[in-house]
Amino acid sequence: MTRELHLNLFISGRGHHETAWRHDGSARRALTDIAHYRDLALAAEAAKFDSVFFADQLALGDEVEHAARGDLEPITLLAALATLTERIGLIATASTTYSEPYNLARQFASLDHISGGRIGWNIVTSWVPAAAANFSLERQHEHAERYARAFEFVDVVSKLWDSWAADAIADDRESGRYADAGRVRKIGHRGEHFQVAGALNVPRSPQGRPVFVQAGSSTTGRGFAARYAEAVFTAHLQKESAIEFYSDLKTQTRALGRRADQIVVLPGISAAIGSTEAEAARVWEELNELSHPSVGLARLKSRFGGHDFSHLKLDQVLSVDDFPDPSLVQASQSRAQAITALVARERPTLRALLHGLAGARGHFTATGTPEQIAATIEDWFVSGAADGFNVMPPILPTQFAIFAEHVVPILRKRGLFRSEYADQTLRERYGLDPVASAFFDADETYRQRSA
Amino acid sequence: MTRELHLNLFISGRGHHETAWRHDGSARRALTDIAHYRDLALAAEAAKFDSVFFADQLALGDEVEHAARGDLEPITLLAALATLTERIGLIATASTTYSEPYNLARQFASLDHISGGRIGWNIVTSWVPAAAANFSLERQHEHAERYARAFEFVDVVSKLWDSWAADAIADDRESGRYADAGRVRKIGHRGEHFQVAGALNVPRSPQGRPVFVQAGSSTTGRGFAARYAEAVFTAHLQKESAIEFYSDLKTQTRALGRRADQIVVLPGISAAIGSTEAEAARVWEELNELSHPSVGLARLKSRFGGHDFSHLKLDQVLSVDDFPDPSLVQASQSRAQAITALVARERPTLRALLHGLAGARGHFTATGTPEQIAATIEDWFVSGAADGFNVMPPILPTQFAIFAEHVVPILRKRGLFRSEYADQTLRERYGLDPVASAFFDADETYRQRSA
Repeated sequence: MTRELHLNLFISGRGHHETAWRHDGSARRALTDIAHYRDLALAAEAAKFDSVFFADQLALGDEVEHAARGDLEPITLLAALATLTERIGLIATASTTYSEPYNLARQFASLDHISGGRIGWNIVTSWVPAAAANFSLERQHEHAERYARAFEFVDVVSKLWDSWAADAIADDRESGRYADAGRVRKIGHRGEHFQVAGALNVPRSPQGRPVFVQAGSSTTGRGFAARYAEAVFTAHLQKESAIEFYSDLKTQTRALGRRADQIVVLPGISAAIGSTEAEAARVWEELNELSHPSVGLARLKSRFGGHDFSHLKLDQVLSVDDFPDPSLVQASQSRAQAITALVARERPTLRALLHGLAGARGHFTATGTPEQIAATIEDWFVSGAADGFNVMPPILPTQFAIFAEHVVPILRKRGLFRSEYADQTLRERYGLDPVASAFFDADETYRQRSA
Repeated sequence: MTRELHLNLFISGRGHHETAWRHDGSARRALTDIAHYRDLALAAEAAKFDSVFFADQLALGDEVEHAARGDLEPITLLAALATLTERIGLIATASTTYSEPYNLARQFASLDHISGGRIGWNIVTSWVPAAAANFSLERQHEHAERYARAFEFVDVVSKLWDSWAADAIADDRESGRYADAGRVRKIGHRGEHFQVAGALNVPRSPQGRPVFVQAGSSTTGRGFAARYAEAVFTAHLQKESAIEFYSDLKTQTRALGRRADQIVVLPGISAAIGSTEAEAARVWEELNELSHPSVGLARLKSRFGGHDFSHLKLDQVLSVDDFPDPSLVQASQSRAQAITALVARERPTLRALLHGLAGARGHFTATGTPEQIAATIEDWFVSGAADGFNVMPPILPTQFAIFAEHVVPILRKRGLFRSEYADQTLRERYGLDPVASAFFDADETYRQRSA
């Protein structure tokens, strides 16, 4: 079987550039209007994308004055989109730090039923410090503690999803036997962070459980991904670091006894596409002309765990001495690391750095014609940098429409990307093995259930 | 303006009788199939019902062998139904004991946006003792403690919903001003149970916040309802206790400075309807013939906080001495009280008690022709027992179809019930005043926003 490219559309507001909301090419609807997300999900489905994805933060960002903040909550959004779409995978972010395993397990099992097996869970530990203050905590848990809780959390919810055998429900009206009590069991979890009796009150869902997605790229984050993740979103400013990450993650995954193809690595790509290179470059210029420095500074401060950069001048050339040690940042360590590496390498002005990061917040940005973008995608795909991409159009919907209309056909012509969906569940689409219940027959899978 | 009858359809599995799942008249689809709920919600919408409602428990009930357990989680279910229906109100149960205010506030605000202002929140403190064991608690919080937390919880989420003014978002592409930072504010809540900084990360929703629904009828429950509830579901085995409850609740509500019409009282009614009385009575007989005593016993045990009734014989005549003191029950006190009162009054056999409760779990059951059921509804409505009903068909969809086709037209002929929807939001439909934000202009309402 030839290797298949995977494409996920990362839907964020009116586009991934922070000024997209002002650009003529961005959607007009309110960010609280479900029709906005429906239109984008249907466009991704028409392009036969694997899935769409929604990030999340458990606090309102600063700078509501100049940035488009405040939208819909991802789990309710996913449930609504499940009924408005038919085939596309749907991935929502939810936090292991600020939710209860029983609640999260129920909601995702329910989503998987409602969507007919198209759900993924982007597992996050919520690095934004402001979130803690919304959840009755004096201060944010430290990075290591957040991950310790995350490991146990995923263990608990996995047991809950395994607490019903796929064939537990008999629904036999004649005999009066609704379920086989021996095929539904309490989990009796007693751990350091959680004590959960179970069973879940939602029967086993079409995929058994949601596809596990993860996006942390710190050392601990990689270890977590190697253990649990089936798809990984990752941010790289250049191909070299993507190759290093890809290779390291596949190696770590194999070291834990998992097959390397059971973890799909999807770097972010934010491409400005034009019919000429100049037209593509003009997209960034237009977006940067609309920018407000306070938004980028607030974002940089948040990336570095609240560090204050306000004394720096916009035209000042930066050095690493202007930044705190990224390994001490109790927020998104891998992203802070990438930014300081870029500063050391390129010595940009603050303005140039903010413009660079405004595009895709530390993800890879590309600029070019559809042929050039398709070539970059193929290059990363065949060079061991990616199994596919987390597509982050700078402007929604127009830059995605160009991608779908002009880049996707090239990828198809090169035999890299599907023309039709050949599968039902997101798990199948990502080439992942069925999930057996840890409690019941080893050969029990959702395949049997649908047989 | 004449007083208008309100009708809510309480959707529960394949009907409210515990054996409905086996009855020929019940739906065939799996309880995890969204189409099952879509069909029922659309039928209620076609009948111009005010709303549909889903109860919830945070633990899998006992007796999965003989009872239909395991379905969809209410919040995701509501989000899906929001896109599958157009006008009907949608009410989901969610717990103040086992969720975080920030998460709940976000999800309900999001639901209210997705549905265009059709959402209600049934506020519960989760009386089922088994729930505690799914949420890392050694034992369930006591009744009083659960309510103390509930009061503060509703206070916090209300502040979160008020944290955006309805006119906060400017979305001015030209000037670059997305929102007015002065119209979005932190709530800075520091209470006994919760510390929440805010603001919410979802802008103000069409109704401002969901309609507050409540169903606890204990002394503390009534106090909570009088303070917060805008619609109340309540269980009464007879009209007299419904009148007492109605009068007491309206009095308590007025005593807190609220108008009596701002709390809509909806007793449950589970009606078996036939073209003759005999045909209607036959519905209960058919259902009881399908019953399994262990299911009723498990339910009785749960209602009395885990008290063991297994030593009683099915044909034994009961007395109140067979029951624990209901005021000491740390579960659903009002329901336990109603059951012991019935035992004192009627001295039923255990079998008769279980059959009686199997129908609607302590709610009023009626048996008769459409004319008789309509007459009962009108009688309660004009006697000060009800502002409308929480309709709990013993069998879904067939007994609801009979209600919609034969009872509703009689209610319309008598000028009691609407023929068309004249409103957009659930709040308007229940005759409730708009909700102003506590933080912003007193006259600020969702009406201005849509103006």
